[in-house]
Amino acid sequence: MTDRQIKTFMKMAISLAKKGKGKTAPNPCVGAVLTKDGQIVAKGYHRKYGCAHAEVEAITDAKKKGIDTSKCSLFVTLEPCNHYGKTPPCTKAILEAKIKEVYIGTLDPNPKVNGGGAQFLQQQGVKVVYPILEKECQNLIRDFYCWTIQKRPFFYLKLASTIDGKIATSTGASNWISCEKSRKLVHKLRSKVNGVLIGGGTLRKDNPKLTVRLKHTSSTPKAIILTKHLPSNPIQYYLGSKRPQETIFFALQNKDNQKTINSFKNLGIKTILVPEKDNFLDLYKVASWLFQNQYYYILIEGGGFIAQSFFFNHLVDEFWLFLAPKIMGDQAGISSFWGRKANSIQDCLSLKLKKHRKVDQDLLLIFQPRD
Amino acid sequence: MTDRQIKTFMKMAISLAKKGKGKTAPNPCVGAVLTKDGQIVAKGYHRKYGCAHAEVEAITDAKKKGIDTSKCSLFVTLEPCNHYGKTPPCTKAILEAKIKEVYIGTLDPNPKVNGGGAQFLQQQGVKVVYPILEKECQNLIRDFYCWTIQKRPFFYLKLASTIDGKIATSTGASNWISCEKSRKLVHKLRSKVNGVLIGGGTLRKDNPKLTVRLKHTSSTPKAIILTKHLPSNPIQYYLGSKRPQETIFFALQNKDNQKTINSFKNLGIKTILVPEKDNFLDLYKVASWLFQNQYYYILIEGGGFIAQSFFFNHLVDEFWLFLAPKIMGDQAGISSFWGRKANSIQDCLSLKLKKHRKVDQDLLLIFQPRD
Repeated sequence: MTDRQIKTFMKMAISLAKKGKGKTAPNPCVGAVLTKDGQIVAKGYHRKYGCAHAEVEAITDAKKKGIDTSKCSLFVTLEPCNHYGKTPPCTKAILEAKIKEVYIGTLDPNPKVNGGGAQFLQQQGVKVVYPILEKECQNLIRDFYCWTIQKRPFFYLKLASTIDGKIATSTGASNWISCEKSRKLVHKLRSKVNGVLIGGGTLRKDNPKLTVRLKHTSSTPKAIILTKHLPSNPIQYYLGSKRPQETIFFALQNKDNQKTINSFKNLGIKTILVPEKDNFLDLYKVASWLFQNQYYYILIEGGGFIAQSFFFNHLVDEFWLFLAPKIMGDQAGISSFWGRKANSIQDCLSLKLKKHRKVDQDLLLIFQPRD
Repeated sequence: MTDRQIKTFMKMAISLAKKGKGKTAPNPCVGAVLTKDGQIVAKGYHRKYGCAHAEVEAITDAKKKGIDTSKCSLFVTLEPCNHYGKTPPCTKAILEAKIKEVYIGTLDPNPKVNGGGAQFLQQQGVKVVYPILEKECQNLIRDFYCWTIQKRPFFYLKLASTIDGKIATSTGASNWISCEKSRKLVHKLRSKVNGVLIGGGTLRKDNPKLTVRLKHTSSTPKAIILTKHLPSNPIQYYLGSKRPQETIFFALQNKDNQKTINSFKNLGIKTILVPEKDNFLDLYKVASWLFQNQYYYILIEGGGFIAQSFFFNHLVDEFWLFLAPKIMGDQAGISSFWGRKANSIQDCLSLKLKKHRKVDQDLLLIFQPRD
């Protein structure tokens, strides 16, 4: 097989994997193809949590078509698992299908698997080649990396700002910085996450609904509010009065908040108290609680202090910036990121721009942390 | 001739016009082609100020090739002139060449010409068609529009900012927000202008050279500083001590500055005093002086107050933003635009994003004012 063929087949496996993206949590999205005589003959991907793994899907697809899998090579974006989980190990299925060659995109970051699946297949006489298009394959499962290694949700951050980095005027006005099409994209992003997270300032200023306002969706991500002090009268807010069962407050572990908890409980609002860190909530504790309670994707929607806090704690995995072609010109306007002190440019946090595209008059920029 | 042919020929004329861009001031850049039997047979453009106009260039090109111009159609991006200036009127050359058909991109905004050239040709029996690709042809001569109608230079603005709209830390540090390749582009832009303009704050904080640091260039744009109060000891700055003859200060018309002028004159530094407007210098007076003194292209390089003042006075024609993928997170950092009050998003100035492209890790965004 030529290098070029190998890359082409892995690319197809990658594009299959993407179909499952967002539905497999806390499993990774994985894609697989079987090839024979230089042609792709069967395909599979992990469709959603609990369903068959990609390798098994591809083998099943081949069998349905009456293809002799013993003459096939397998391309899979992620190392096959070698342990019993929700399904039997994929290594077993590969051996049963008598596949002699396995091309792996990247090893599994999961310590239960890492290298073990590949090694086991090799011990059984299978030719195993890895890594192939490793960066792309790792990029596919950045969410899985958060879950498996960091034991925390994958955090998206979304902001809409002017060219001069303002997300609202000094009086709190922000309707609307970004264009209609941009705002619709935000609702699509909301529909893919388990929770939409804001700070207490945004709650007080914007009194937001945080719902998904799209046709044809039943998605209702929870509303998550991070605030040092619980508000005394939560029903003055839309979330407290209209969505109490879908709202979670995180606040500081202190006597005042302890006292307030009961009134929140009576309204049906969940409250989690966490310790203080850097003069705010310990965000790692927040992240850990969310993960333990099956929140796999969280969308942070600001304000600027929350955005800065998550970023400088290395808790933002993908940052969507809707840059509107507008100039506010007012230094008192609210910055997209604030709350720390920078003495030099070296104190800035450097990101990597992954994508940029026009959304009507706005520009959507997607950033990731640097490796 | 088909619509498609007409557009194709005009596009060729436009790309010819661009070759002269920046060298024709205060004349417009213009391109022209002659076509015969559906083919382009001759080309021309206005190479630089004082040289032949595009139409004459194209006719000369045709004659050199022995082509009978009386059988040709002329495509020209801008209405042919009908008055004696540095050269005889182009309408005369067209009639002498016995051209029967003239396709014009856009009419001349110059009140001395507007419609007159086209009308004169029609009166002489020439078929005249306009406008063709008018927006593109108008866009070519946005600089000429500034000179002819507004009697002011064409102003570029360049800024390098973080994602959160900061051009420096609160301590004034700004080395380096943008990447090396971006900074090189800035020097290229400097090499194309007659003056590089900054505010007094930038002079005091950065003590800049404002030179063109490129190999193979002899361009030395003047350094222009706008400040309410003239500094008492200008030789403490690079510009005052090393480039006095190439430096111009604009300051407020008041007694203090009047007193200081002489010491500036003794150092060889030019000083222009202008009236106050909106608690700063009257920028229209500055613009007018610059134009009258043959400054056709000016590059504004900040800081944020100068950038804001020029923009909100509608004196920025093209804005180059080098957006570095960095977050400062410090609200005390210096904003890319400051000095006014915005109470609502509607108070923002809306721009049009014309181009965006990666420059190494940065993103270069080019904005124009909205029509």
